Amino acid sequence: MARHPTSCEIQIRVRYAECDPMGVLHHSKYFEYLEVARTELLRRSGVRYRDLEGRGILFVVSRVECRFRRPARYDDELTLKVEITRMTKARIDHKYELYRDGVLLCEASTVLACVDRQGQVIPIPDEMTLSE
Amino acid sequence: MARHPTSCEIQIRVRYAECDPMGVLHHSKYFEYLEVARTELLRRSGVRYRDLEGRGILFVVSRVECRFRRPARYDDELTLKVEITRMTKARIDHKYELYRDGVLLCEASTVLACVDRQGQVIPIPDEMTLSE
Amino acid sequence: MARHPTSCEIQIRVRYAECDPMGVLHHSKYFEYLEVARTELLRRSGVRYRDLEGRGILFVVSRVECRFRRPARYDDELTLKVEITRMTKARIDHKYELYRDGVLLCEASTVLACVDRQGQVIPIPDEMTLSE
Amino acid sequence: MARHPTSCEIQIRVRYAECDPMGVLHHSKYFEYLEVARTELLRRSGVRYRDLEGRGILFVVSRVECRFRRPARYDDELTLKVEITRMTKARIDHKYELYRDGVLLCEASTVLACVDRQGQVIPIPDEMTLSE
Repeated sequence: MARHPTSCEIQIRVRYAECDPMGVLHHSKYFEYLEVARTELLRRSGVRYRDLEGRGILFVVSRVECRFRRPARYDDELTLKVEITRMTKARIDHKYELYRDGVLLCEASTVLACVDRQGQVIPIPDEMTLSE
Repeated sequence: MARHPTSCEIQIRVRYAECDPMGVLHHSKYFEYLEVARTELLRRSGVRYRDLEGRGILFVVSRVECRFRRPARYDDELTLKVEITRMTKARIDHKYELYRDGVLLCEASTVLACVDRQGQVIPIPDEMTLSE
Repeated sequence: MARHPTSCEIQIRVRYAECDPMGVLHHSKYFEYLEVARTELLRRSGVRYRDLEGRGILFVVSRVECRFRRPARYDDELTLKVEITRMTKARIDHKYELYRDGVLLCEASTVLACVDRQGQVIPIPDEMTLSE
Repeated sequence: MARHPTSCEIQIRVRYAECDPMGVLHHSKYFEYLEVARTELLRRSGVRYRDLEGRGILFVVSRVECRFRRPARYDDELTLKVEITRMTKARIDHKYELYRDGVLLCEASTVLACVDRQGQVIPIPDEMTLSE
């Protein structure tokens, strides 16, 4: 049985500074949102990523993929769903869906690797593992 | 015969503000670099993206994919290679490789769609097409 | 009697991507936070800045000043207070105080000018004026 | 006699991702540019800020002030002049002027403090001091 939630959703309001001359959320900024969602999912497991880093346990992004279906605009209130789709000894995969009023704007996936301060792959700490 | 260069490379110095608490270039910032490379490739064809937008011809990113192999660090001087891999009536695909001193840090690809100010797909303007 | 609130406070959580290699909120990012606070203060007057821009009424920042007293760190939950300190026909001055757990981190002030799409100074619209 | 240059100028091209829905460089981004200019001024003295940080010598921004006179636009090529206006035992003041084609866009000033990794004020290292 999973000890932790494996998915959650957050609300994010698009900031003016995040939008580009087209008046829409710049595509690079979506990755900041995904990161915020991962942090909140972890927090709901009782783990603060800040504390992990303090102990020398880091998660680096090794791969991202994102399809932008419809633009998000300045001041939009968005719902971002994040879900852990796979966890191995040293890697976590997430997928994401971004919505505005129930309309899908974007789908994304990321692969994270667990590393130490020297960048060497290390096992994901026990308190984060999903298994029974 | 191609009228335009289909690839180029640019140099980019990593800024302090672009790096995160791990001391490395934040993964969201790579997409700003890719955009700079696309702009420069276009400029070498004699086209300024600024002018296209002024005429109501916009390129929106519809898909990105990126593999981060090794971190880029603050103050690194990087070489970013960009190449057009495919162009259809209303879509351009690019691929990218980011290097530091000949070492590959990152590989990426993007898909752009040509749209008007209302977001409707329109044909890529003639001066950008690659064919004879 | 003022028709509108002239001050408010918002909560902001510091994102990982906003922090620099020192592990603290990069000084350039404070200005994004100030902008979010101004937007929320306006919203509490029943005005959406997005709608103003849609009508061709823009506010441009003409001056900023900021004293950074203590660093804000990744994942900190901050309280940002914003207050309108002066409003003339075409200009609004705000001051700001940023706190973490009651400790002052930063004080700032900004001057905004009301302009049209060509950048020409225009009067602040009636629904935003503070007077009786 | 000063051992080091106390001023320099750099060229910066405005990126698309740095511009906001008004189509102009967002005011928060100017501070990234100022930082790039400080880094280059230091480099011309033979000092890499990266190396200083590696030795535990950090410069934190304690105050900024900026007047935005005219907007910078996407793809503009700008000239940024930076000058050290004052240096004390543990503090450096800079001023800045940003130009496009000889037209002044922005004037700014910053105050930096030299600190160690714990944020305690320490003396500016000898190789950076300006005096004879």
